Amino acid sequence: MSLRYTAPTEVRPEMQDFVAYTPGLTIDEIRERYCLERVIKLASNENPLGTSPLVQKAICEQAAMAFRYPRGGLKVAEAIARHHGVTAEQIVVGNGSDELIDLLIRVKAVPGVHNVLGFKPCFNMYPVLAKLCGATFRQVPLNEDFSFPWEAMTAMADENTALIFVTTPDNPSGFCPPVEAIMNFAATLPAGTFLVVDEAYMDFSDDEKKHSVLPHLAQLPNVGVLRTFSKSFGLAGIRLGYAVLPPSLAAAVRKARSPFSVNLLAEAAGVAALQDKEFRRETLRVTREGRSFLSMELKKIGFTVYPSQANFIMVKPPRSIAANTLYTALLERGIIVRQLKSGYDLPDFLRITIGTHDENICLTQAVKEILHA
Amino acid sequence: MSLRYTAPTEVRPEMQDFVAYTPGLTIDEIRERYCLERVIKLASNENPLGTSPLVQKAICEQAAMAFRYPRGGLKVAEAIARHHGVTAEQIVVGNGSDELIDLLIRVKAVPGVHNVLGFKPCFNMYPVLAKLCGATFRQVPLNEDFSFPWEAMTAMADENTALIFVTTPDNPSGFCPPVEAIMNFAATLPAGTFLVVDEAYMDFSDDEKKHSVLPHLAQLPNVGVLRTFSKSFGLAGIRLGYAVLPPSLAAAVRKARSPFSVNLLAEAAGVAALQDKEFRRETLRVTREGRSFLSMELKKIGFTVYPSQANFIMVKPPRSIAANTLYTALLERGIIVRQLKSGYDLPDFLRITIGTHDENICLTQAVKEILHA
Repeated sequence: MSLRYTAPTEVRPEMQDFVAYTPGLTIDEIRERYCLERVIKLASNENPLGTSPLVQKAICEQAAMAFRYPRGGLKVAEAIARHHGVTAEQIVVGNGSDELIDLLIRVKAVPGVHNVLGFKPCFNMYPVLAKLCGATFRQVPLNEDFSFPWEAMTAMADENTALIFVTTPDNPSGFCPPVEAIMNFAATLPAGTFLVVDEAYMDFSDDEKKHSVLPHLAQLPNVGVLRTFSKSFGLAGIRLGYAVLPPSLAAAVRKARSPFSVNLLAEAAGVAALQDKEFRRETLRVTREGRSFLSMELKKIGFTVYPSQANFIMVKPPRSIAANTLYTALLERGIIVRQLKSGYDLPDFLRITIGTHDENICLTQAVKEILHA
Repeated sequence: MSLRYTAPTEVRPEMQDFVAYTPGLTIDEIRERYCLERVIKLASNENPLGTSPLVQKAICEQAAMAFRYPRGGLKVAEAIARHHGVTAEQIVVGNGSDELIDLLIRVKAVPGVHNVLGFKPCFNMYPVLAKLCGATFRQVPLNEDFSFPWEAMTAMADENTALIFVTTPDNPSGFCPPVEAIMNFAATLPAGTFLVVDEAYMDFSDDEKKHSVLPHLAQLPNVGVLRTFSKSFGLAGIRLGYAVLPPSLAAAVRKARSPFSVNLLAEAAGVAALQDKEFRRETLRVTREGRSFLSMELKKIGFTVYPSQANFIMVKPPRSIAANTLYTALLERGIIVRQLKSGYDLPDFLRITIGTHDENICLTQAVKEILHA
């Protein structure tokens, strides 16, 4: 292979296709631009109740220790293991689950040899990170109702398939298959393929037992689970995700991880977030009730609302208004939702994070105003 | 290439050689084990003065926002650019400089094709991350006095050399060449090779102007600089590092970086750390004075002390005591220094971080006690 660079700043040819992340306007910037008093952000699936008071206290108490190197996330990994009733050796913590997605691909996929599979559309980090790792990413289109075409995925897996990523509840649709479907699917995979079930939004489902593979991992040697502290635990900004894996694979991921990738405040905040059961219970209650409320209200006024078990709903506006027109009209009223054009290639849909009851009412009122205008 | 896995948890053959990071005992654990009242940690090159009060305040103020996703480090990148008098497009921030080392290799080195060079011994993350990226890592042994064999490094670079990593001041020796030597070296490199000068410890040097390439980057199209907030800024636990690069390479690294790798508290803490000039000035004063003091005191009692421009010194104990014996004897007295056996393959040497004046006195007294025992 001839790849002699002629300039010192030349980079891998694959990098040409990469696009840098550009953060949207901040709440303050939007407030200023549109002369608004209040801005409601329902765009990033963040926690409607903010940050737990116990977590805030833990962060402040640890602030004086910020000059010390982190401890490899040992303590929070043990707390997570207790939370799920698994062993600490099955847990790997990361700088958000993004890091764990990356590390799983890095330890399993030999560049130029192995492939990685996902549905289409799927969480953007799977294809981006697979490509960065030099692995081919293959995608199976979702069914028209956004349910999972399991058989087509099985058919696409071959002896060089190192990993398959499945998000459930799915992003952006909210679709959530019964756990039996995932277990049956896992049984159809080639001997060397590992299935990663990304359960970032699982605890928002009405009945985790019906949907989560996490309690079944002992019987599933080719399945692992990703979870995150960014959603129901309210730690998106502090970065803490984790994987529950067979011990030998967990050990390999731990070896590949940079020793200090999980910061010291995330370690402390994660432990505190697990302790604040009241905050989390309230988060789940507000989200589930808000999901029913918002779904019902938007259906009433002609939206197609996809059934969701996550802390967001995917909607298609009524024919009278295009998704991007509605998006802009909401933004002008100080409400930020998520367009699904870029990343998901679904220009006719919007994704709306479930807010507090008050925020949800503001959203429905704004939508009604816009539609009747 | 045939690499068909027969089990779902099988990983890349390269992973066999990786070793997981195991954090040492905590200060509390050492205190308990040896029944000590006070433990002094001079092992990890952390800030002797702890965390700046301004930084602590910024962290506490941001704690309530921990539920929001980070902003891609935009604001702190701008503050860093102002601090160095460069443009923000030259700056890439990362989750510690570890992430930037990794990303530089990932964007430049095509797996299985390119090689990466460093001295031997060198900062362990260079070879580990190169290997993870599927790049060959080649090492040129340092001169016997730990100075840099530039000509041997030039001779080792070939048309497939994507990157060269040089740490200055060097870790663990503290050696720091004049900036002219680096500039001359850069001029000898192949057309496609990029030189990364890791200046993690540069601001502790007696005269940055004599040593740092950072002010000369505009004239050096094949050179970039890494810096960190872990040392003089006292943010080791919160993870914030940065690279100063030619804009096109910076853009490529930014594209490859996960959008939320720099946490929200690091963004705020970094801005505050840059503002607290008094704290940093005092850190540099304490470190420089402590370095002279410790070097002198240890030389007096028979140590070989290597000239250092960093916030640590590398020493060889007098013949009467082996390095590991001294290490253990210090630990029993509640003083943790760094052994250089693992990672650096220098079993006869110890690395001692410069502490506060009081800590430095405790160390020299303990050493004297041990040697006269």
